[in-house]
Amino acid sequence: MQELKDRIKNDGQVIGTSILKVDSFLNHQIDPEFIMRMGREFAQRFSAEGVTKVLTVEASGIAVAMAAALALKVPVVFAKKKPALTQQGALYSAEVYSFTRQESVHITVEKQYLSSQDVVLIIDDFLAHGEALCGLACIVKQAGARLAGAGIVIEKRFQGGAEKLREDGIRIESLAAIEYMEPGIIKFAE
Amino acid sequence: MQELKDRIKNDGQVIGTSILKVDSFLNHQIDPEFIMRMGREFAQRFSAEGVTKVLTVEASGIAVAMAAALALKVPVVFAKKKPALTQQGALYSAEVYSFTRQESVHITVEKQYLSSQDVVLIIDDFLAHGEALCGLACIVKQAGARLAGAGIVIEKRFQGGAEKLREDGIRIESLAAIEYMEPGIIKFAE
Repeated sequence: MQELKDRIKNDGQVIGTSILKVDSFLNHQIDPEFIMRMGREFAQRFSAEGVTKVLTVEASGIAVAMAAALALKVPVVFAKKKPALTQQGALYSAEVYSFTRQESVHITVEKQYLSSQDVVLIIDDFLAHGEALCGLACIVKQAGARLAGAGIVIEKRFQGGAEKLREDGIRIESLAAIEYMEPGIIKFAE
Repeated sequence: MQELKDRIKNDGQVIGTSILKVDSFLNHQIDPEFIMRMGREFAQRFSAEGVTKVLTVEASGIAVAMAAALALKVPVVFAKKKPALTQQGALYSAEVYSFTRQESVHITVEKQYLSSQDVVLIIDDFLAHGEALCGLACIVKQAGARLAGAGIVIEKRFQGGAEKLREDGIRIESLAAIEYMEPGIIKFAE
């Protein structure tokens, strides 16, 4: 998606060789119209899959997931990172290590919101080592649902997560895939 | 908003006399079309205020905030509950006690995303004791921005937060306000 690549080039900030900060339109401030265009792009790419639910994990994935779900006319379910007092039902769960936060979190989805009848599109903002996507795919498997694939806004290809998961047979569609980066340089995959 | 009251009556689950679970359309599963109607309702109620930014806090507020921002054609900024490795800039911050999670969190907004030029509409899913809204209003004040008011999906009026904040001069628009509840009974304010 050329618009996204341009925004990353113009507004993105590379820290070291592994952290890309896109807080101006995705991770802290959100550009709603742009997010809606991304959502429509995901919906189009997965239009033949008969998706019944969009699955993401709080918090940065929610806006894009909602945009994709609007275009697909299906609900979003967002996995929670921390149980609230209101969570009482039976849960699907997976352990996810966050390299950004350097800690493990236990993500959960209440069983009533995902079933074996569902065809699930996972949406997330970033794919780096693949931990979050792996955890979400694991939850889809626990539900006995069919995984249509994953729509990722920014794939950091050099961190290897996408390759591993594609080898496992997961269809991954990224709107922008980065092969290499360092401060001042971002090289996108073709 | 009658549609919301009906959904709360039909799908909401009251736990004790203070917790309302609306996970089927707002807090865990999201009904995107319904969320968009809520967003348009907020945009309409605050249409005369010249809002330049919608402010919320991760995670459950993001979807409704995005819907309101889309209708108002302005960006969303969501306050973070935990600093990420990517947060390096100068921050506005406030301490917020969550009764649902029974812990204090430190919410932050990077200074570059909120300025004294902004007119801010705060959006959140719930208003109970008013802790989150108070923290967000505090951040707006730190930025020197003008607070247009707060759009709240569900106000739990019996918990007193809204009354206190209205006395402080904050305009609060709730789509549904609950005066009393217990399992099987939800009494809305007129």
